Formats: sequence, structure tokens, C-alpha cells
Amino acid sequence: MIKHALTAHRAKDFSAWYQEIITAADLAEDSGVRGCMIMRPWGYGIWERIQYLLDQKIKETGHENCYFPLFIPLSYFAKEAEHVDGFAKEMAVVTHHRLKANDDGLGVDPDAKLEEPLIVRPTSETVIGTAFSRWLQSWRDLPLMYNQWANVVRWEMRTRMFLRTSEFLWQEGHTAHADRESAMEETLNILELYRSLAEDCLALPVITGEKSEDERFPGADATYSIEAMMQDGKALQAGTSHYLGQNFSKAQNIRYQDKEGEFQYAHTTSWGASTRLIGGVIMTHGDDDGLRVPPLIAPQQIIIIPMLRDKPEDEPILEYCDNIAQQLRTKSPFGEKLRVIVDKKGAKASNKRWSWVRKGAPLILEIGGRDVEAENVSLINRTSLYNENGKVAFQTLSQQEFIDSASTLLESIQSALYMQAKQRLDDNIHHDVEEYSGVESFFAKDKVNPGWLEVQWSKPTGEALDKVVERLKKLKLTTRNIPQHARPATGKCIFTGEQAVERILIGRSY
Amino acid sequence: MIKHALTAHRAKDFSAWYQEIITAADLAEDSGVRGCMIMRPWGYGIWERIQYLLDQKIKETGHENCYFPLFIPLSYFAKEAEHVDGFAKEMAVVTHHRLKANDDGLGVDPDAKLEEPLIVRPTSETVIGTAFSRWLQSWRDLPLMYNQWANVVRWEMRTRMFLRTSEFLWQEGHTAHADRESAMEETLNILELYRSLAEDCLALPVITGEKSEDERFPGADATYSIEAMMQDGKALQAGTSHYLGQNFSKAQNIRYQDKEGEFQYAHTTSWGASTRLIGGVIMTHGDDDGLRVPPLIAPQQIIIIPMLRDKPEDEPILEYCDNIAQQLRTKSPFGEKLRVIVDKKGAKASNKRWSWVRKGAPLILEIGGRDVEAENVSLINRTSLYNENGKVAFQTLSQQEFIDSASTLLESIQSALYMQAKQRLDDNIHHDVEEYSGVESFFAKDKVNPGWLEVQWSKPTGEALDKVVERLKKLKLTTRNIPQHARPATGKCIFTGEQAVERILIGRSY
Repeated sequence: MIKHALTAHRAKDFSAWYQEIITAADLAEDSGVRGCMIMRPWGYGIWERIQYLLDQKIKETGHENCYFPLFIPLSYFAKEAEHVDGFAKEMAVVTHHRLKANDDGLGVDPDAKLEEPLIVRPTSETVIGTAFSRWLQSWRDLPLMYNQWANVVRWEMRTRMFLRTSEFLWQEGHTAHADRESAMEETLNILELYRSLAEDCLALPVITGEKSEDERFPGADATYSIEAMMQDGKALQAGTSHYLGQNFSKAQNIRYQDKEGEFQYAHTTSWGASTRLIGGVIMTHGDDDGLRVPPLIAPQQIIIIPMLRDKPEDEPILEYCDNIAQQLRTKSPFGEKLRVIVDKKGAKASNKRWSWVRKGAPLILEIGGRDVEAENVSLINRTSLYNENGKVAFQTLSQQEFIDSASTLLESIQSALYMQAKQRLDDNIHHDVEEYSGVESFFAKDKVNPGWLEVQWSKPTGEALDKVVERLKKLKLTTRNIPQHARPATGKCIFTGEQAVERILIGRSY
Repeated sequence: MIKHALTAHRAKDFSAWYQEIITAADLAEDSGVRGCMIMRPWGYGIWERIQYLLDQKIKETGHENCYFPLFIPLSYFAKEAEHVDGFAKEMAVVTHHRLKANDDGLGVDPDAKLEEPLIVRPTSETVIGTAFSRWLQSWRDLPLMYNQWANVVRWEMRTRMFLRTSEFLWQEGHTAHADRESAMEETLNILELYRSLAEDCLALPVITGEKSEDERFPGADATYSIEAMMQDGKALQAGTSHYLGQNFSKAQNIRYQDKEGEFQYAHTTSWGASTRLIGGVIMTHGDDDGLRVPPLIAPQQIIIIPMLRDKPEDEPILEYCDNIAQQLRTKSPFGEKLRVIVDKKGAKASNKRWSWVRKGAPLILEIGGRDVEAENVSLINRTSLYNENGKVAFQTLSQQEFIDSASTLLESIQSALYMQAKQRLDDNIHHDVEEYSGVESFFAKDKVNPGWLEVQWSKPTGEALDKVVERLKKLKLTTRNIPQHARPATGKCIFTGEQAVERILIGRSY
């Protein structure tokens, strides 16, 4: 039996495994500040890679980055009642602007109360909309297409690292368009952009589709999402794109003069993706030995570990390692410079090996004196860590052979991770339940990965929808989305018994 | 007489000119939220370039990026009394975590008061120090070298865009070392890194040196700065590097076991550079036609403006422009891909030209039908906008000639901007005042650029220093720093009359 690097096993206790991997892979830690985490270099490095790749896509599609204030005056929220209602009002409120020495040492200065409280932005529709109303005059100004990278705060009662923290990092896009059609086109273009980010960069297969009415963003006319399946079968909403109709533009007076000189309210969109994606990467690609980072988002793609003994013989080993690293840096997997480091830290080689295994570096080389003599490398591929005997699978390659094949190897690891996850997603979406009783029995079974059901429904609204939501809630289920590429409906709605109009995914979720 | 693009002239009203250029160059605007600005795409694009270049330098010198919480519990500040005292306690305080519908519409929910107020970070020594105390165990863990890119908030009473805003963006580095020597080495390495960023990337010549005791960062044993000279002669402190000694490590228990097994307090450093640098770029390189952005930090280095008439003849012009852009993108000024755009917006070519002049794009091409026929380009170099007659200096070059020389041109603009500013700095530091009365008369003169004085002093401390500070304050002067490369002192201190020990810069400042 293999003795894995982690204590917790994901098939036994997924939640404990998730907590352990975050520490073991050095991704993040609790900060001691309620609901806020510290992102450690390896975790933050993954975020920097995601930022870099997503930022390129955002700019290539004609959006410009800006930066809006962290604080939003309370009165801005009052304008958009539905929006605020939906946000459950759990926000961090700044009420004072000064501290003061007091008997306890240091306290809030009661004389420094703000006239109007400021809200730490939970999202920036209200403040960006206010700017849009100033910027937009004529149809010639349209579309407005902006994005910002920012921290936001939502006062979450139950937090979980990367998935739900009070403060998190994200990008939020905000655009304004002349009409419904072009705003809707933008909404769907962004959905496709998020799909491509998830699948092509993070190796996270996703289902794209529209959310049901009850799961819409507060104030939106339509919300689209990408939904990824974690190894415990739960869904992770990994990015959302909202068509806001004229709701925000009417509340905030975002209007323009059309070609005929008439004033028209713009149609706006907003969309965001966050550090939550890292939670998705962990729960999709992690195993019982730690994380496996897709090479495209790995802060370092190849780690070279010299087996040092603190002796003069170390010198040629280090030189050999540096030379390999230098040659690797001339290679361009995925069209970018290969990222490689030589880990020279003064620790035992096997400790360093396991530390990089837990972190999930895609390729790990161990170089000892014999490798130098034979001009070889000993290679561990993190996606196939063990051989048939349950031992760590070292592969010996000539130095040159390895250097020549490094890019291909990394690219094949990227697609192997995707294929593995894609297979899991496909295998665990079930299409054969046609009665509501089938839903109950399906999710009653105690499985490692219950997966999702794709069922037919009549798209109820209002009270009829509320009933559906209530029934699902009892089974801890929610609707995920209405897949864009699902087959047309042909039968009865499993909730109402009426003629079905489309298919919808249901499952448990984060 | 030249009719310049801006209404305000920097020689007449520098402050009005500064305000106007920020709007005219589309850098930033007031957000309506107290003391916070909106960074517009061109301004934010410059910040993205600065970030990119500085981030490389930070990583190359062995630092790793992480991310720490936005909120810091009040009690963390209470630990470091001197630090808090120095910060004047002007901070944004979060006291509640929920809003509630009330008679006015929406208000703060009094039932959602936090047990302990949270401070929006003004800087992160206290929260990062707390993490260091957990992370540091043994001498083997040292040095700890971290950096974060973040927003911070200081409740400023009088704000000014880029120079002093309540919220601003920066990077803050935090390191811990075994002893004074290695911490001091880090402090000075960073000073050099900032100098290189300013001079080599932003074309801002600076004086590096130690701040006098009264100008130190609260809680530091030594503060070093880079000081740049604006066109009105005022100094801008453009980056600071602090040796914190054991002050923070003792307050926060940052200690390690040395090789002998004894517990030792670490020596820590911190250092930061912010969006203030953009204010420095404006006030150093701006002219009465707008900004001039050094090519290395220009979001776009070359703008190609097709002269369109909304007719079929536009097609070959656009094609010609796109082709030039494509060829330019294969060039690598400064070792990076050249950044060029074709401005296809539907506005008059001359309006577009002036908009890019005001923004300060380094090279602007205007392409009309005749240029296409002759395979030429009409070129404006933003650093030499007018010819001798006071007309805009268009230069005609063959397409091929321009493409071949574009990289060299951009590189020469970068050094021309640096040389111009360097000349101004050198010309305006005066070394010949040897009596305090000379200081008074020197700064009494009404000059566009009074510049700085480099004077000899005895490095007074305590009350004697307080007196110096008071006297300077009456003239609206402060000490800037003790230049690293100043000549040794040879005479008397102009303040105390005692034997001088070093030379120090004094001047007005932002």
C-alpha cells in the first residue's frame, strides 16, 4: 500500500483533505483576522498566473483596465434597492476615521465619526455606474468596456479558504452598450472567455449556461455561469457573467443620446472571476499527495533539486543543474518562456522532493553525482507519481533528451489533467432521471462523487419556482445552470409534470 | 507664439497646470468618494507598466509575493506604540458588518457592531510581523523576504491626485534578517533598486540618501529615500526603504534560534513605492501640451492615426496602418515587444492627434492617402513637438526607414527625457550657501524653480534637531536627505555653527 504524503484522504474526508492540502501545498493560511486568509507565495503565484492569462484575454477583447475606489458611500447602495436586498447587506462599514489614545491604550475616536458611512466594496456596480453616468453622453461613446483588478469584502459568516472568505481578490468587468442585443453579445462573449480560461488554462472542464431566475445576481436580468465539478461531486460556480438590462442604468442615470438625438438608457453588463478559481484547481486536480498544478498556471514548471552533501563534490552538481536550467529557459511551452528553478535550499533532497510533490510542481528533477557523470536526469512527473509497485516513479533520461522534450512533456501534462477531469465530469452527469422521486433516491445514495443530474423542466417562475427551490433545498440541492449545449427538451418537467422546455443541472454545490 | 494644448502654463501656475494635465491626459478623475480617485485607463496603464518593471526587480532580488489581509485588528496597532504615534492615527475604522433597512431607506445595523474594530491597513508591518513571528523558528529560515501589491488607506485631510490620496496603490516589501548587517544590506539594496526603477525606467533622476531623524518612518532606526525634483523645484519623496532594527521584532516577538540554540530577535526592514510615482512622472516630464510618457512605461509607445473620411478610400489607408503596426510589433525596444496601436476611433484625425499629444504617447504617426501612395509616414516626436516656427514638427520618413529606426527612436526619447530632467536636477542643487541667513535669502527669491540647497550640518539630535526643524518650517522647508554620494563635510554646520559632519539637502516638498 502506498503511504501518501497527506494524512487525510479525499475519498474518506474531502473537507479535511481540502484543509490539509492548503497547508501542505503552502497555498494559504489563516491570518488571525476574521474570515481573511494570507495567500502564501505558491498560492499567490498561481493567482498571478491566472491574472496574467485572464488579463490578456480581457485586453484582447477590447476592455481597458482602470481602478475605482475601495469605499462606496452608503447612499450609492440605497439607489439600487434590489441589488442591495440580494446582497443580504452583509458588508464592512467604515464609520470613523481616527484612533485615539484612551484608558485601554488605543480606541476609536468618537469625535471622528464620518457624516456618511462608507462601505468597503462588495462589488462595484454602484460606484462604476455613477462614473458611467458622467462618462456617457452620446451613442458615439458606446460601448464602454472596463475592467478592474481589486479586493472586495463580503461579510461571510462561514468562511472557507479560497472558496468563501470575507476579503477576496478578483477582477470585475463593467460595460455599457446601446441595446439589449450588443449587451447580450458581450455577456456571452465573456462567458466564452471564462470557459476558455477555465478549460484551456486551468484544465478545469466546465459547463456553460444560464442560471435559473432564483440564482441570478441581484439586479440582473440574466446571469450566466461556468460550473466545474469537484472530486466530491459538488459544483463550483467558477465565474459569472451578468446581463443587467436597464436596471442599473435607470437607477444610476446611465444614458446617451442616440443618432436621432433621443435619450436612451444604456444596457449594462458585469462579470467577475476570483481567487475562488484556486479552490477549484485544488479540488479538481489535487490528490492524496498534494496539489497538481496545471503547467500553464504553475509559478514554476520544473524544479531541479541538486542532491547536496555540503562537500566539495557539490560544486559540479550545482553547475550541472544551473546549466540545465539555463537551457530549459530557452524553451517556450505554451508560447511562453519556460519557468524553472534550482532549489538550492539547505535541506535534505528527499524533504525538498516531497515538498514540491505536495505543492504540485509539474516536473521534478533530482540530480546526484551519478547523474552528472552519466549526463542524465532523474525525473518525477507529478501526474504519474507512482509506478506499479507503489514506489515513486523515477524516470532516467539523458540530459539532452529531457531538455528537448521538456516543452512537450509540460504540454502533455496540461492536457492529461484536463482529460482526467473532463472524463470525471462526463461520467458524473446523469441524464436518466425522469421523475422527482428519482432525484431523491439518486442523491440518497452515499457515494464519494454523487455527481449531478441533468433533468428536464418547464422553467417555472414566481411561486412555482419557489416551490422547486424549496424541494431541492431539503435535499441540499440547487439548480446549477441550463447548459448551453444540452439537447432540447422532449418530455415532462420533473418538478411540475408540465411540458418541459429545457434541461437544467441540479447538484450540491460550494 | 505657440498656442499650447493646455490652458494652464506650468511656469505661471504649477498647481493649476498639474490639475489640468491629469484631466487632459486622461490619467485620473475625482471619484466623488472623499479623497479617493478613479484611475483612468491611460493612468492605470502607466501604473501597470511600473508594476511590471518593479515586480521583476523585486523577484530577481529573491523576494516572493504574497497577499495579507486588508483589515488589521485594532489591538495589533496597540502593540507598536511608536509606530502608531507616528501614523497620526488617521485611519479608516470598520466598526459594523451589516446594513439594515430603516426609515431613511438604508442605514448601519446597530446590532452588527464588531467586538473589535478593524483598521483598513495604512501599511502592513503589524499584520505581516505577526505572521513572521509564526513563520520564523530557526536561523535556517532566514532571511524572510516578502512583498505584496496592495491598496492602503490613510485618512488624509488635504488630498491631491496621485500625490496624496486617502486610498492609494503600492507595493510594500517586508523582510527579516539574522543581524543588523544583513538587514542594512537589504535596506540599501532596495534603495538602489528604487533608484534604478526611477532613473532607468521612469527617467526620473533622483538623489539617494538617508533621511534625517525627524523624517524617519515611525518605528524605524533608519529611513532611506529617493528624492526627485519637480519642475517647480519641489522635492518628491518617491520611494522609501526602512531599517527597522529590532523595534518591530521585539514588539511582535519575531525571533529565531541561532546556531548555538539561543533565541535572538530578528532585524527587519520594510520598503514601499506607490502610485505617487505617477505624480512624479507628470511633474517631471509634463509640459504645456500635456504629459510626455517615457517610452519604457508608456502603455502604448507608438500611435498610428489613419486620416479617415468615411469613404471607400479609407480601406487601403487602414490596411497600410495595420501593416505598419504588425511590422512594428516584431521590434523589441528595451528588450520587450514594441507596443503600438492603430487608433481607428471615429473622430477627426487632428482631434485624435491632440488627444495623444496631451496623453504623451512618445511617437504619433498620421497616415493619409498621400503617405500610402509614397509609402511614407508622417511622424510627430512628442519630445520635440514644435519646429522653429512654432508649428507642429511633422517629419516625413519612408515607411521602411521608420520601422527600422523605431526601436532606436524610442530608446533615444527615453534617454532624452532622462537627460533633460537630470540637467534640471543638477542645475538646481546649490552648494554655495554657508550661513543660515543665506538659506533665508535664497528661498525668499520668487523663482519658477527655487531648487534645493545642499548644506553642511552637524547632524543635531533631540532638541537641537527640533530647533532646526522649526526654523526650516518657518520657510516651508524640510530636510530631504543626506545624499549618499555627497562630498565629505569640511566646514561649519549652518544651523548650529558646530563642526559639520555631513551634507544634507533642504528644499520645499510635496
